Amino acid sequence: MENVQALKERTSDLVNLGETQQLLGWDQQTNMPPGAAVARANQLATLSKVIHEMSTSEEMGDLIARAGKDVMNLPEDHDDRKLVEVSRRDYEQATRLPTNFVAEFTRVTALAHEVWAKARQDNDFASFRPELEKIVDLCIQRAEYLGYEDHIYDALLDQFEPEMKTADVERIFGGLREELVPFALELYERNDAVSDEPLHREFPIEDQRRFGLKVVKQIGYDLSRGRQDEAVHPFCSSFSPDDVRITTRFDKNFLSPALFGTIHEAGHATYEQGIGRNLFQTVLGTGVSLGIHESQSRLWENVVARSRGFWEYFYGLLRETFKGVLDDVSLDDFYRAVNKVQPSFIRVEADEVSYCLHIMLRFDIEKDLITGKLAVKDAPEAWNAKMEEYLGIIPETDTLGILQDVHWSSGILGYFPTYALGTLLSAQLYYRTLQDYPAIPDEIRQGKFSTLLTWMNDNIHVHGRKYMPAELIQRATGKPLGHEDYMTYLRGKFGPIYNL
Amino acid sequence: MENVQALKERTSDLVNLGETQQLLGWDQQTNMPPGAAVARANQLATLSKVIHEMSTSEEMGDLIARAGKDVMNLPEDHDDRKLVEVSRRDYEQATRLPTNFVAEFTRVTALAHEVWAKARQDNDFASFRPELEKIVDLCIQRAEYLGYEDHIYDALLDQFEPEMKTADVERIFGGLREELVPFALELYERNDAVSDEPLHREFPIEDQRRFGLKVVKQIGYDLSRGRQDEAVHPFCSSFSPDDVRITTRFDKNFLSPALFGTIHEAGHATYEQGIGRNLFQTVLGTGVSLGIHESQSRLWENVVARSRGFWEYFYGLLRETFKGVLDDVSLDDFYRAVNKVQPSFIRVEADEVSYCLHIMLRFDIEKDLITGKLAVKDAPEAWNAKMEEYLGIIPETDTLGILQDVHWSSGILGYFPTYALGTLLSAQLYYRTLQDYPAIPDEIRQGKFSTLLTWMNDNIHVHGRKYMPAELIQRATGKPLGHEDYMTYLRGKFGPIYNL
Repeated sequence: MENVQALKERTSDLVNLGETQQLLGWDQQTNMPPGAAVARANQLATLSKVIHEMSTSEEMGDLIARAGKDVMNLPEDHDDRKLVEVSRRDYEQATRLPTNFVAEFTRVTALAHEVWAKARQDNDFASFRPELEKIVDLCIQRAEYLGYEDHIYDALLDQFEPEMKTADVERIFGGLREELVPFALELYERNDAVSDEPLHREFPIEDQRRFGLKVVKQIGYDLSRGRQDEAVHPFCSSFSPDDVRITTRFDKNFLSPALFGTIHEAGHATYEQGIGRNLFQTVLGTGVSLGIHESQSRLWENVVARSRGFWEYFYGLLRETFKGVLDDVSLDDFYRAVNKVQPSFIRVEADEVSYCLHIMLRFDIEKDLITGKLAVKDAPEAWNAKMEEYLGIIPETDTLGILQDVHWSSGILGYFPTYALGTLLSAQLYYRTLQDYPAIPDEIRQGKFSTLLTWMNDNIHVHGRKYMPAELIQRATGKPLGHEDYMTYLRGKFGPIYNL
Repeated sequence: MENVQALKERTSDLVNLGETQQLLGWDQQTNMPPGAAVARANQLATLSKVIHEMSTSEEMGDLIARAGKDVMNLPEDHDDRKLVEVSRRDYEQATRLPTNFVAEFTRVTALAHEVWAKARQDNDFASFRPELEKIVDLCIQRAEYLGYEDHIYDALLDQFEPEMKTADVERIFGGLREELVPFALELYERNDAVSDEPLHREFPIEDQRRFGLKVVKQIGYDLSRGRQDEAVHPFCSSFSPDDVRITTRFDKNFLSPALFGTIHEAGHATYEQGIGRNLFQTVLGTGVSLGIHESQSRLWENVVARSRGFWEYFYGLLRETFKGVLDDVSLDDFYRAVNKVQPSFIRVEADEVSYCLHIMLRFDIEKDLITGKLAVKDAPEAWNAKMEEYLGIIPETDTLGILQDVHWSSGILGYFPTYALGTLLSAQLYYRTLQDYPAIPDEIRQGKFSTLLTWMNDNIHVHGRKYMPAELIQRATGKPLGHEDYMTYLRGKFGPIYNL
């Protein structure tokens, strides 16, 4: 096992450098003074280069080959065997991308990000168009370098959801669409039945912070191995399972972004904090995919924290925290307010029912851009047509339409589907947990979350990257990912709220 | 100049990685959750290893040799020529230390730090003694690896104050001691003439923060390229001249630590922020030595911010900030309070007069430990004897004596002298500035600091590491470093305060 040990040491260096890279990024968005942007870009560039060199070195290839022989006879899911497999996967992915290409990709997207930010501000798609054209071309090249069997989009998707295929997504989204679109339309028509006015009152920021932290601590986010800071675009960042930090943005006149945003990010954090200690400092010691990650954030944000039972427990404390502000709002009205459904233009503000429709639209457009079926110049029109098709509304500006998301400007195509896949999975996991522990809804009503969290720890978190997402889902829920549980969940919840 | 360009690129990678290492350290002391200590140690260890490998690679040696030929005919103080010289110096220092030795040194000191912290808390030198013995041995080995001509301590000193020799320090401290010891004794006798009670009232922390930031902004610390955070042991940390951060600790019942501490760290920060843009991203783009650095922090903390003129300007604002707290304290009494002189056990709380005596004691003991004249087991006794000799007092516990400083537990021997050298230099620089701009004291009275800061920018900061400390001092002040100006400064200031 000498070779395995050598591989572990070498890859643990990579893990440490990757965590350091995360810290540079976290600091950039939380603490960095504005004048330091160029210096930070240089630091990130050097570290990326060092990591790429180390990941693709001949020495690494040899180590993996030698260690592969050592673990051949170990049981299939032995940690060491999995470690070699995942190291090999990472190595193959990294070596497929030429260093020059990686540098060019980084350079183009760094510049495009600024152009996009301005274009969105000015509602000026034309100025972003040349950048997006370059990025689409680079993503096509990237996919060609990475390789694929069936569909070019597979290569991009695989970066975020390993081994998931375009055809799988099409099948799952197809089934979902058929049920979700008519269901959403039914709710939109009853739009006025629910008011979310109570959420748009004045909520002092310090009190929001205090309440949010109390909630996520109670859920099980361990602040002795984490912390919360402010950032314009909230995220969760992990510098080892013992240092998993969340960020939040506060709006004095709107309770939802900080409250549900904090719980969402804390959901991500429970995943990273729950990685098995046996996997610390190894390439297996982090979340396996963005879809699995999103299942954890959506579980706590929506399935739990937008449930009536959750507010039976927390509403008293919420009212106490914001003295007087919600005195005229009953528990039921508050529960309905946090579950108001309405078609809207902005994905990150979408309710649980329309959220996946926003994603389907992006998936359709990304595929068409990558296969060349759609030209970048025609994309805004395609966007608006899809909005009408899926949500029945057309944005008046590109800022409210195709320019709203940061992802493409950063060169990230293939990522969006994971948001919806994770959303579906959150319900599938929850229903599976209820089979084992039917008392969970009662526990939630009592502010007790440990049974649910422990189940997620044992069935998802602890495994890190040991199992590919499809296998992990099969093992945890006894079936492949589907849309059925999510639709059951939506119908069961929103039917009563809207008196269907 | 192709080789010079290649060297610049290679060393700029090292600069970026060094800055990243600084960020890991800064975060550890400001933000890191307690559970992350082991993960952070691993990240730091990997990054150190990568930096050490890159700094000592054959490729680096070759690049320096080739670039050296290219710059031979450039003017002596051409940036490129200096860059090659300093790169060669760094390379030679780094290659003298075997990688195994560096790793062992890191390991021992990481563990010793914890032991020391506990020993200090428990006043238990015996438990720290074996660690300190190992550290002294390692420092002797380190000095042997680094090499020296006259005195083994030269090798240690040189790490913090390049090219400064033990004999130089002995000569400077010798002259200082002769004048300072009797002067201090004279003041100690009149100890009661000044009360610092006004500083020990209640000062709300938020107001302290606001006032401190206002002061350092007015002095010229640029917060668009810096920020302030809290830390148990305040420090200044630079991740490029465009990102220079200070930390402060607050005591609700004592104004001095945060107020003068903030100004002290901001003084360090002005140095790093003032580095010439031509030196950014190069090995020359940071402060040249700890002594020069300390001259800047002490200049602003003491020479400026403990002057009567400074408080003529700021005392009104201070009183306004802490409404009612200082109504019964006249400007003169406040000025005297911040300049109270009294013998005390703890270096970091020492006044301007006794401060250098604390340093001389440490210099004597470090030398004796390194030459073997003093055994670690006898060091506490030696410490107490020196305290009596220099300051006329004997600490009752080792916690108040030999265990007070963090430095030795971190393997840092040879550093202490730079505190006193910088202190002396602060006066020497100030007096030189007054020759050019006699109106500076009047400007300070009006809250104007730009003439003084600009002089420091032009004569010290802008040069980064281009000139060795001795040359920089000679160029800036027209003479070598001495104790005379400092004694003139002390007599001129404390004579009147104590009616000598």
